[in-house]
Amino acid sequence: MARPVDVSALVEAARAGSPRAVARLISLVEDAHPALREVMSALAPHSGRAHIIGITGSPGVGKSTSTNALVAAFRAREQRVGILAVDPSSPFSGGALLGDRIRMQDHALDPEVYIRSMASRGHLGGLSWTTPQALRVLDAAGCDVVLVETVGVGQSEVEVAGLADTTVVLLAPGMGDGIQAAKAGILEIGDVFVVNKADRDGADATVRDIRHMISLGDRTEPGLWRPPVVKTVASQSDGFDEVMEAIDKHVAWMESNGTLRERRVRRAGDEIEAIAIRSLRSRMGDLRHGEGVEALAADVVDGQTDPYTAADQVVDALT
Amino acid sequence: MARPVDVSALVEAARAGSPRAVARLISLVEDAHPALREVMSALAPHSGRAHIIGITGSPGVGKSTSTNALVAAFRAREQRVGILAVDPSSPFSGGALLGDRIRMQDHALDPEVYIRSMASRGHLGGLSWTTPQALRVLDAAGCDVVLVETVGVGQSEVEVAGLADTTVVLLAPGMGDGIQAAKAGILEIGDVFVVNKADRDGADATVRDIRHMISLGDRTEPGLWRPPVVKTVASQSDGFDEVMEAIDKHVAWMESNGTLRERRVRRAGDEIEAIAIRSLRSRMGDLRHGEGVEALAADVVDGQTDPYTAADQVVDALT
Repeated sequence: MARPVDVSALVEAARAGSPRAVARLISLVEDAHPALREVMSALAPHSGRAHIIGITGSPGVGKSTSTNALVAAFRAREQRVGILAVDPSSPFSGGALLGDRIRMQDHALDPEVYIRSMASRGHLGGLSWTTPQALRVLDAAGCDVVLVETVGVGQSEVEVAGLADTTVVLLAPGMGDGIQAAKAGILEIGDVFVVNKADRDGADATVRDIRHMISLGDRTEPGLWRPPVVKTVASQSDGFDEVMEAIDKHVAWMESNGTLRERRVRRAGDEIEAIAIRSLRSRMGDLRHGEGVEALAADVVDGQTDPYTAADQVVDALT
Repeated sequence: MARPVDVSALVEAARAGSPRAVARLISLVEDAHPALREVMSALAPHSGRAHIIGITGSPGVGKSTSTNALVAAFRAREQRVGILAVDPSSPFSGGALLGDRIRMQDHALDPEVYIRSMASRGHLGGLSWTTPQALRVLDAAGCDVVLVETVGVGQSEVEVAGLADTTVVLLAPGMGDGIQAAKAGILEIGDVFVVNKADRDGADATVRDIRHMISLGDRTEPGLWRPPVVKTVASQSDGFDEVMEAIDKHVAWMESNGTLRERRVRRAGDEIEAIAIRSLRSRMGDLRHGEGVEALAADVVDGQTDPYTAADQVVDALT
């Protein structure tokens, strides 16, 4: 049995700035707690203010250090910052190492910075199910900015773009040039490209490479956002004025032409769909234990029917 | 418009052993062709004979060479073999390099060996949607054995177990010991463990490690299958008699206690569910373009409602 939760007290405390209440609400999200429905309903009127920034890049590009430098830049503007480190790669362990690593750094004691790591634990749909709700918690808790950082493994790099208003893609010289970025699908998703470790050999070549690959894409048409490519040395906090400027410009561009609202509506639509699918799937599970799907599955194994016909029967039973 | 397909002629040709017909049918699966429904219905009475063997392991363990040696072993028994190489890691490119690599090897000209590579292209649910149908094609085409090989990246290693009757996990000395296997979740899914490159230093330590980790799990209870650990040198086809013996024993064990049928029924249930979800999702998409979901999503963005309440309304509209 799940422990009963005083949702309105918890939401009030989170809105008043209690890190403990924020942490508890995100735990409810992680646990898919039955009270979530009530939590989300209570948070709804208070959400929609935070600027969600996705940060992605392969291991080794300096993601953690860059996040740290970005947090400092937002804090210098006296903004409240949330950081959500998501590890979608590990279906079994719950450990999101990255988050723990960040936790140790400069902002651990700053009450205006919420840091949280989350394992998405191989839920179908990866990031799509739990992450938006954790973001909504941080948003409603008064964060001006939320940085979502993923451990960049394969698809999660691309998925983070679906969660963010602005996606920052980190690269490093010699780690991957434009063609590798293209293969990983990150050229399409980056709103701002950052070449970190720019004091190393090959940084300018990487910048040229990325610019060239962007120019080959379909993002050069008038009115489209042309992603800037910025050089940084995160370990020395070098170049972050330029990163902030690029992010500000992207926000201004999105606000000027309705893209921001469009992205958010599309995202909310994806979230609604994911929750609806989950609810339909759970009804299917009920059918299944009631031997509905199982009997059909046995017929498929015996060659009495095919999976499409069986699926039609399941859908008919649900609808 | 999809090109019209003469399904019964195609299915007949595939059953008569035409590699071209088999290839065309699998392409229909990859393309989610409208004729698939008719194809699966025509294949249903002819499926359920093939033994599906999943082969998984990290890059560098010698998966391709081992598959090759296994194919030779099954061919020595005059069995017809299908090989499906799945690359679920690449959402954008359709290239399944592994398959091409295999294609170049020993069995390319053997008419009793079907080789096919497939990109699962980041479909939601990864392998779960297209792969079972491709397997059904190879099964109905008279394959006695189908080897499903995944490019081992994160979750796909675990997912392949959901598709197979017998899952063979490959390891190599120094690549990963028992603890790494445990972290990757592959201890739970392996029915047979193969330590390849066993002529290298550390092979015996890796075998001991894996045996030890297995003994710590819950698989030592009486009546449960205790996965054997076999050493091979795939480049010299060494050790494959033992691998075949381990696989044979696993099949005999599964047949003796109903596990084989149980696994297949569970798999068919998953497949039915995946198709049903897809159909419900497409109805949702229709709602969405009819502004149903989109209007709700806008309300969520405006804080007028929360995603759970919106999802309830979507489910109500569908059911």
